[in-house]
Amino acid sequence: MLERITEQAKATRAVADVLANLSTAKKNELLLKMADKLEAACDYILQENQKDLATAHEKGISPSMMDRLRLTAERIHAMAEGVRQVAGLNDPIGEILSGKSLPNGLVVKKIRVPLGVIGMIYESRPNVTVDAIALCIKSGNAVILRGGSEAIHSNLAIVNSLLECLEECNLPKALVNFIDITDRQAVNIMLKLNKYIDVIIPRGGAGLIQTVIENSTIPVIETGVGVCHVFVDESADVDMAVKIVLNAKVSRPAVCNSAETLLVHKNIAEEFLPRIITELQNKQVRVQGCAQTTAYGDGIFPATDEEFSRENLDLILSIKVVEDIGEAMAHIARFGTKHSEAIVTKNYDNAKAFQKQVDAAVVFVNASTRFTDGFEFGFGAEIGISTQKLHARGPMGLPEMTSIKYIVDGDGQIR
Amino acid sequence: MLERITEQAKATRAVADVLANLSTAKKNELLLKMADKLEAACDYILQENQKDLATAHEKGISPSMMDRLRLTAERIHAMAEGVRQVAGLNDPIGEILSGKSLPNGLVVKKIRVPLGVIGMIYESRPNVTVDAIALCIKSGNAVILRGGSEAIHSNLAIVNSLLECLEECNLPKALVNFIDITDRQAVNIMLKLNKYIDVIIPRGGAGLIQTVIENSTIPVIETGVGVCHVFVDESADVDMAVKIVLNAKVSRPAVCNSAETLLVHKNIAEEFLPRIITELQNKQVRVQGCAQTTAYGDGIFPATDEEFSRENLDLILSIKVVEDIGEAMAHIARFGTKHSEAIVTKNYDNAKAFQKQVDAAVVFVNASTRFTDGFEFGFGAEIGISTQKLHARGPMGLPEMTSIKYIVDGDGQIR
Repeated sequence: MLERITEQAKATRAVADVLANLSTAKKNELLLKMADKLEAACDYILQENQKDLATAHEKGISPSMMDRLRLTAERIHAMAEGVRQVAGLNDPIGEILSGKSLPNGLVVKKIRVPLGVIGMIYESRPNVTVDAIALCIKSGNAVILRGGSEAIHSNLAIVNSLLECLEECNLPKALVNFIDITDRQAVNIMLKLNKYIDVIIPRGGAGLIQTVIENSTIPVIETGVGVCHVFVDESADVDMAVKIVLNAKVSRPAVCNSAETLLVHKNIAEEFLPRIITELQNKQVRVQGCAQTTAYGDGIFPATDEEFSRENLDLILSIKVVEDIGEAMAHIARFGTKHSEAIVTKNYDNAKAFQKQVDAAVVFVNASTRFTDGFEFGFGAEIGISTQKLHARGPMGLPEMTSIKYIVDGDGQIR
Repeated sequence: MLERITEQAKATRAVADVLANLSTAKKNELLLKMADKLEAACDYILQENQKDLATAHEKGISPSMMDRLRLTAERIHAMAEGVRQVAGLNDPIGEILSGKSLPNGLVVKKIRVPLGVIGMIYESRPNVTVDAIALCIKSGNAVILRGGSEAIHSNLAIVNSLLECLEECNLPKALVNFIDITDRQAVNIMLKLNKYIDVIIPRGGAGLIQTVIENSTIPVIETGVGVCHVFVDESADVDMAVKIVLNAKVSRPAVCNSAETLLVHKNIAEEFLPRIITELQNKQVRVQGCAQTTAYGDGIFPATDEEFSRENLDLILSIKVVEDIGEAMAHIARFGTKHSEAIVTKNYDNAKAFQKQVDAAVVFVNASTRFTDGFEFGFGAEIGISTQKLHARGPMGLPEMTSIKYIVDGDGQIR
C-alpha cells in the first residue's frame, strides 16, 4: 500500500508543472468539458451512488448522513453548474501582487503561483470531489484526493468521468489522482509524503482533522470544525435575537457555520429564554443547558462541559446564562473552535470589544453565523473554511489556494 | 520537564491578548526601553557570552561557528539599533486589508491581527534572541524562545535584561518566555504544545529544521536551508558572471542565501570556468565538481550527489557543467531547497523560462542570490527566509508574522 500511494504521489508531483504553467484559456476549456461530462455521466454516477447508499443503509447510518451521501440528477446538475462557475472566475495565477525598483536598480516583483500539489482528505459528501478538482485546476494545482470509504463508488465514478476530460485535452491523467484504498492506513501514508505533496486540506469531522494534524509532516490547512456561539447581550433587540438564533441553529444544522451554543446575558434571560426555547422546541431542536436554563421550562436537558465542547451538526442547542460579556467571551475562548462567533447587542462598546477580543476567523455583530461562507462573502467559490491562523483564515477561495514567488530582474548587481 | 515547559507555554498563552491589544505607542515605548537596556547591560551580557565562548572553545568548534557565537560591544550596540529600527517600522496590526458591503447590507472587513503565540527554535547566534523578541512584540505576538545550548548564557543574559523592561512597562513577563532547558528533549515537548503555541519558526541548520517538521503538531514556517544555485548560461556576460558568482559565494559564505553550486552551460565552460576557478581558489574557496569540471585545473575535488545536496555554509563551491538550461533547471529541481536561484544570461527567453519554471522563493536574473534578504527587499526587518509555500515565502517581515480576521457588522441579517 505504501509503495502504491507513494508512486501515485510521485506521478502527480512529476506532472504538476504542466498545470502550473497552463494558460487560463486551457484551464477553462478543461473545466467546461468536465461540467459537460458530469451531466453526460449522470446515470452512471447515480448507479454507483446507489451502491454506497445500499452499504450505508446496511450499516444503519443516520438520515442526515444518508442525505449528505445521496446524489440525484438535480445535485449532479448543480455540481456541473458549480464547475462552470469556477471556469468563470478570475484566474489567480500570474497576478502581480506588488512590485518595486530598489535603489540599486533591481526590480522585485511578487507574483502569485500555485501551491503545487494539494492533498485533499475528506469524508462522505461526493460533491467535495468535484469542487476540489475544479478549484485545484483553476488555481493551477495538481490534486491527490482521498475521499471516505462510505462514498468510494460515487467518488470513483466522478473521478473516472472527469479523467476522460484530461485525456481529451492531452493533459496527463496524474494531475488528478484519487487514492482508492479505503483502509484508514492510506491516510497515514499520505500524510508523510511531504516530498511530493505541498499542502494537506482535510475536510470532515473533528476526528479526521485531529488525525491529520497529529500525523502530517506536510503543512496542513485546518478546516471546518465549528463550535460556533451566539451571545445575546443584555441590550439585544429580542426579536432580532430570536431570528438570528433560529437561523444560526435550524437553517442548516449539519454545516460547520451553524451555532452549537447560545450564551444569554442574565439580565435578558427572563424575557428572551422562554421565547427562544419554545421556538426551538417547535422546530424539533433538542434544547440542553446550564442549571439556570433548565429552570425555564420542561424538556430541557442538562448540559455539561462535554456538551459545550461538542460539534453536534444536528438539531441540538446548548444554552448557558452568563453574568456579562466577559463571561461570554471567556466561554467562547474555552469552548470555541475559532470558526464563527456572533453577538446580538445594541451596545456600541460591547460590539467593538467582542469583535476585537474574540479570537475567531469571523466575528459577527447582529448577524447569523451562517454567513461564514465563500459564496456569501462574494468569493465565487470555496474549498473550505480555515480555522487556523497560518496562510488562510475563514472562507478559502481561489487566492487562498496559491502561494507567491519573488521574481528579481537585475543587470549584474552584487552585494 | 514536560510539566515545566507546558506551564511556561500556558502562562504565555494566558497573557498573549495583552500584547495583541496593546497600542502602537505602548509597543514602541517598550521597544525603545529594550534598546536602551541592551546597551546598559552590555558588560553583563559580554561577561555571560564569555562563558559560552569558553565552552565552545573547549569543544573545539569551528572558527566560523565561534564567530557566530561571539558578542562584542559593537555587536550589542548594533542589536540595540536594530530594536530601535523595529520601533520605527509601521505597525501591521489593525490594518484593514479590504472591506466591502454585501448586497444584503452586511459590511465585511478583513483586518490584520497577530498570530498569537510564536515559538522560535534556533541555534547559536544570540542576536536572533533580540531580533525575535523585537519583531514579535511589534507584530503583537507573545513569544516562546528556545535557543541553542551553545549560547545559553548569552541568551539568558539578553532575555533577563529585556524582561526588566516588561516589568517597567507594567506588562506580564510571560509575554516573552525563554525555555532554559538545554536538553534536546525540550524541543520535542515544545513541538507538541499546539494548544498554546500558534506557529513554530525554526532557524538553524537542516537537521534542526527536519526535526521540527517531523515532530511538530503546531503549524511550522520552514526557514532558511539554502542550497542556492547560480546558472551561467551560454549567452552570459562572462565578466558579470564572474562578479555574481564570486559575490554569491564569498561575500558571506555562512548565510543561507549564499551560493553552494555553480551550473555552467557547456558552450561557455571553456571561457568561463578557468577564470572563475582561479578567482575562487585565490579567495580560498574549495572548488569541487563534476568530471568535466575537474579537468579544468589542479586542486579541483570531485563532487558527487552528496556534495550537490549539502548546504556547506562555508568556502566550498560545487560546480557542474550542463548541456543546456533544461538540465540546469532539472538539477535545481532535484537538489535545490526552494530558497534562491539565479541565472546569468543575455537570452530573453531563457531568462523568462528560468523565472517561470524554477520553483523557489526568489528567482534572480543577472543578480546575486545574496539579495534574498528582508532589509535588501525594503521590509526594514526580517525574522527569517521562508522556504515553504504556505503562509509566507521568501524574506519574512512584520506583515508575514500576522494573521487576518473577518469582522462583520449587521443589523439582523439571516440566511
